[in-house]
Amino acid sequence: MVFVLKKNAAEDKIAAFVKKIEGAGFTTFLSTGTEHTVVCLIGNTARLDVDFIVQTNEIVEYGKRVTEPYKAVNRTVHPADTLVTVGGVTIGEGYFQVIAGPCSVESEAQIIGVARSVKESGATLLRGGAFKPRTSPYSFQGLQERGLEYLLAAKRATGLPIVTEVMNQTQLPLFGDVDVLQIGARNMQNYDLLKEVGRCRKPVVLKRGFSSTIEEFLMSAEYIVAEGNPNVILCERGIRTFETMTRNTLDLSAVPLLKQKSHLPVIVDPSHAAGIRSLVPALSKAAVAVGADGLMIEAHNDPANALSDGAQSLDLDQFRDLCGEIRRRAEFEGKKVK
Amino acid sequence: MVFVLKKNAAEDKIAAFVKKIEGAGFTTFLSTGTEHTVVCLIGNTARLDVDFIVQTNEIVEYGKRVTEPYKAVNRTVHPADTLVTVGGVTIGEGYFQVIAGPCSVESEAQIIGVARSVKESGATLLRGGAFKPRTSPYSFQGLQERGLEYLLAAKRATGLPIVTEVMNQTQLPLFGDVDVLQIGARNMQNYDLLKEVGRCRKPVVLKRGFSSTIEEFLMSAEYIVAEGNPNVILCERGIRTFETMTRNTLDLSAVPLLKQKSHLPVIVDPSHAAGIRSLVPALSKAAVAVGADGLMIEAHNDPANALSDGAQSLDLDQFRDLCGEIRRRAEFEGKKVK
Amino acid sequence: MVFVLKKNAAEDKIAAFVKKIEGAGFTTFLSTGTEHTVVCLIGNTARLDVDFIVQTNEIVEYGKRVTEPYKAVNRTVHPADTLVTVGGVTIGEGYFQVIAGPCSVESEAQIIGVARSVKESGATLLRGGAFKPRTSPYSFQGLQERGLEYLLAAKRATGLPIVTEVMNQTQLPLFGDVDVLQIGARNMQNYDLLKEVGRCRKPVVLKRGFSSTIEEFLMSAEYIVAEGNPNVILCERGIRTFETMTRNTLDLSAVPLLKQKSHLPVIVDPSHAAGIRSLVPALSKAAVAVGADGLMIEAHNDPANALSDGAQSLDLDQFRDLCGEIRRRAEFEGKKVK
Amino acid sequence: MVFVLKKNAAEDKIAAFVKKIEGAGFTTFLSTGTEHTVVCLIGNTARLDVDFIVQTNEIVEYGKRVTEPYKAVNRTVHPADTLVTVGGVTIGEGYFQVIAGPCSVESEAQIIGVARSVKESGATLLRGGAFKPRTSPYSFQGLQERGLEYLLAAKRATGLPIVTEVMNQTQLPLFGDVDVLQIGARNMQNYDLLKEVGRCRKPVVLKRGFSSTIEEFLMSAEYIVAEGNPNVILCERGIRTFETMTRNTLDLSAVPLLKQKSHLPVIVDPSHAAGIRSLVPALSKAAVAVGADGLMIEAHNDPANALSDGAQSLDLDQFRDLCGEIRRRAEFEGKKVK
Repeated sequence: MVFVLKKNAAEDKIAAFVKKIEGAGFTTFLSTGTEHTVVCLIGNTARLDVDFIVQTNEIVEYGKRVTEPYKAVNRTVHPADTLVTVGGVTIGEGYFQVIAGPCSVESEAQIIGVARSVKESGATLLRGGAFKPRTSPYSFQGLQERGLEYLLAAKRATGLPIVTEVMNQTQLPLFGDVDVLQIGARNMQNYDLLKEVGRCRKPVVLKRGFSSTIEEFLMSAEYIVAEGNPNVILCERGIRTFETMTRNTLDLSAVPLLKQKSHLPVIVDPSHAAGIRSLVPALSKAAVAVGADGLMIEAHNDPANALSDGAQSLDLDQFRDLCGEIRRRAEFEGKKVK
Repeated sequence: MVFVLKKNAAEDKIAAFVKKIEGAGFTTFLSTGTEHTVVCLIGNTARLDVDFIVQTNEIVEYGKRVTEPYKAVNRTVHPADTLVTVGGVTIGEGYFQVIAGPCSVESEAQIIGVARSVKESGATLLRGGAFKPRTSPYSFQGLQERGLEYLLAAKRATGLPIVTEVMNQTQLPLFGDVDVLQIGARNMQNYDLLKEVGRCRKPVVLKRGFSSTIEEFLMSAEYIVAEGNPNVILCERGIRTFETMTRNTLDLSAVPLLKQKSHLPVIVDPSHAAGIRSLVPALSKAAVAVGADGLMIEAHNDPANALSDGAQSLDLDQFRDLCGEIRRRAEFEGKKVK
Repeated sequence: MVFVLKKNAAEDKIAAFVKKIEGAGFTTFLSTGTEHTVVCLIGNTARLDVDFIVQTNEIVEYGKRVTEPYKAVNRTVHPADTLVTVGGVTIGEGYFQVIAGPCSVESEAQIIGVARSVKESGATLLRGGAFKPRTSPYSFQGLQERGLEYLLAAKRATGLPIVTEVMNQTQLPLFGDVDVLQIGARNMQNYDLLKEVGRCRKPVVLKRGFSSTIEEFLMSAEYIVAEGNPNVILCERGIRTFETMTRNTLDLSAVPLLKQKSHLPVIVDPSHAAGIRSLVPALSKAAVAVGADGLMIEAHNDPANALSDGAQSLDLDQFRDLCGEIRRRAEFEGKKVK
Repeated sequence: MVFVLKKNAAEDKIAAFVKKIEGAGFTTFLSTGTEHTVVCLIGNTARLDVDFIVQTNEIVEYGKRVTEPYKAVNRTVHPADTLVTVGGVTIGEGYFQVIAGPCSVESEAQIIGVARSVKESGATLLRGGAFKPRTSPYSFQGLQERGLEYLLAAKRATGLPIVTEVMNQTQLPLFGDVDVLQIGARNMQNYDLLKEVGRCRKPVVLKRGFSSTIEEFLMSAEYIVAEGNPNVILCERGIRTFETMTRNTLDLSAVPLLKQKSHLPVIVDPSHAAGIRSLVPALSKAAVAVGADGLMIEAHNDPANALSDGAQSLDLDQFRDLCGEIRRRAEFEGKKVK
């Protein structure tokens, strides 16, 4: 950790600052420039808050942590790729999985029908929303408990492991038979939920908040892993920018960056990012090429009559065609498909 | 509600679309242009989802709701300004209140000391964090239950009503004696929390999410009011932009806009927006001038040793000076101060 | 064009508005709702400014142009893909070209050396900056005229057509032997420069402004094409967002969107977008997969001693390896490589 | 300047790096941590490019300039406030000036009429666009030379100094009798224009680019001042964000920040920022309170029929009322009005 002191820092204040830091168990080195003095700390600074020190010491102009604030999810700490296994499916480096299904579960017949179709097309996990976070209190909020039951029926019918969103920790008891918990973008910094999900050991798909930096995203994953659950799958799903032609801007650069910084698997959700069906195939192919470990794609039996997000869903034929394209490219990239 | 159909829309498909809409109980008017047909709906369209209709009808290119999606918080529905009263303090148009206190409650002596001082300076409500949402799981998470007890002690000592953040709905039973619940920016779209808070009748300070549009902000307030709690105070606290010199960009235009669109009180938090103490006075004065109904300002007995956000806190002398400046300007604007 | 009138619009004002529009040569249809009246215009509205009408007619709440404001670059007007040919190289749908070279031309030997190497690796055009827009007046501003001479020497030595940036229209006489003019991101809305470049017929690489919407980008291309120069190549190079880990956020969704909306070729510059060398290969592969017609990649003989943007440049060996990867993928996608 | 070296930096590479820096005339101090080595440079580092050094030395992980890259505009270099005087009007700390007029000059009668009215209301400078940068090539581009003539006529008629935009340096000869040159937001990084404007001594209103950081804004001012023209007036006019309810987000925090960092005058343009007339009064009052040295406000004789930006223009009565409100507040803040 390095601190640059202000130009006019008085010598006695510098001495007091150094004494305080050394009193906390660190060794310091001072370097006195023509304009500024720099103080370097030596020792394990993980427990120090760099902003806090800058803010609470008037003579400090600037501070920089040399090591990243995330530890458990950091590749330097844990160089080997994490592989998350669920129901015989492996998610992580070297594999490519497609998670597919409708935005919302609408009926038992619907979700079983979609599950059978996407499985045949090549999907290896089934997604579907039972609890739906919606901007308006007047919009459809999902089938809730009943939606979960229908998802489990689809799992029994097809053998596909299921991925579905949990909106708050009081719902967790209902998710006992769910294979993968999803934390939605709006909940990425719902820390109490992250902690609870960290206390169970189920795999978690953690979606990037639509205005979260990559570092904040990794810090939220850190909350889960720090509580003891290492099975976190990061999901890039677009960030909020000034561009309005797409719903969000898919940040594909985040994929190689996350894989450099962390050992966790990274998947991409092109459907929510774009919000436009016609962009999903091109973005899916790009996600394979950029190095993602999988895709989460909305596919619906009847998008024209979907209860939510119909505009971004592929129909089942479109999904089958795309799945073939994805598989060809994943194999081209040397990934195992299932 | 108006729909613009695609250029090549076939006549039979247009007829089917019109039939579907009329079947749902609306009257329609068609206008056939040289390139596009436009369909106008007449009737109460509050229950329709415009995006859904666009997305699920292939021939529709574009749709526009003519009326806003928020109802209960809409000024056209409820033209009179809402005044929220708590412990003898009125928040809303015509009044100007200053809510002050430390970012985090640190000890009983600290919070009582700060409360006495800010009261004397002119603050009319006391703020202080007991449960703290922090980016890192390794940062100080607040004194929690104990922090609430200390706040209540400060309330008993000074008579100031207290404002403090609730992070999830399971904590609500602990907040029985708290005067005003605060929903933090990261929880602005935690819908389950909004609903629960809507079911109690306590006043709520709802902070704007740092990447939320003004419409989303009003929709989140709608969640609370729709559940029966009309006592919502909107708080602008800065949005995330590309600028890095301030922590967030305080969006003061939001204040007159919110007051045009809604009847709810609007306050401003310059401390979290700027993240820099030296900007707080200028932004506070601007907030009075732009028409806000109050300010929420961080003030701390010893910012240099604060446990969180010290850099943006005023010390108690600075706060007293600023409070005098604010009062002069609020009176200049014809606002009642307390 | 559709206008939604305000709720309380008086009948005589509506009549006056309709009369004004009909006086301008349009047919109108009125649709009177329970709350709002909607006016639909029929006729060629290309010459109307929708915002202007909304702003200048008090009774109009909202207006929407049904057709896009760009005409010459619009795919609906000109459905066939534009192919730009320069020095025997074809840029556009069905082809995949790699433009490579250093950020800045540094010496004759350097640029000839780089040109020979990138040509051998598979690049089909040479890029290099002679005039350099720099944030600081104290930074290296390029070799200017001398840089252009060295580029032309490299063209003579290798036969590669050259692409280089023109910063203002007074420089154009110097660019007579340059094959492709580049308009930089900061000049995307320098309309006088766009008009001048539109008056010559040289191919133009137009870079997207780092905060420009896709519609603004197409409107800038429209400026060039409207002056008579159809040879515009659009270049996505990253947009400014809140994320700071990359220099800009590469918006790969823009590629399929631009190709849907317009007939112009679209290329991608991953080097400037990311600002980090290690991300260039992954983003280049993604650009091929997402449907781009080419790449513009920074490659330098000695990145560690480059005079500008060394951190994002590949060295010549890295470029050769990447070029092989790109070629394999372009062929996989059925594109002609040269 | 401080450099943090990478974890695994070899000793011989560190020695080579240090030798290179010392060879360039700097003294260095090394501080060796448990994980990282830090190198501090002592001496005048103004000529060094920190990014360049990080990028071109593989062992360097991170570098930080301790002093800001702008010099001539930096308050630490030039502590006294710059006062710009033009036609007897002083712009800068301690004064408050209102620049008013229509977006575009439309006719001689119009601009003279507006000039007389705004002068009577209290404006001390006249603005009006002759050359207009427009997103669409099909929009009104301004009256150009003729517009300049009409502005000069208005100046003769009223004595008000005039402010008008120059779009490119070839136009400068036409601006001989113009009092204040305006550089528009889209040209803030048109460096060749900045340099030319720096070579004349006329006062310049430099508008912040709508996606420019405060540091980039100051660097563009530095281009002008470094060429010898100290008469630069900074103008905050809103930045591009995700919010769509206003045209841009007025960044009022920029005002106190710019005044802390620089000695140049800072004014605010609320009209272009908001794009909505009804917000202009509140934002103007906030600009006074936040510490601006003046305002630039659009006022038009007939906004409903303005040729551009009518929606954001006040009519002359509204302007007169607002001008009174502004004057009262500027006097309250102790500013000289004219």
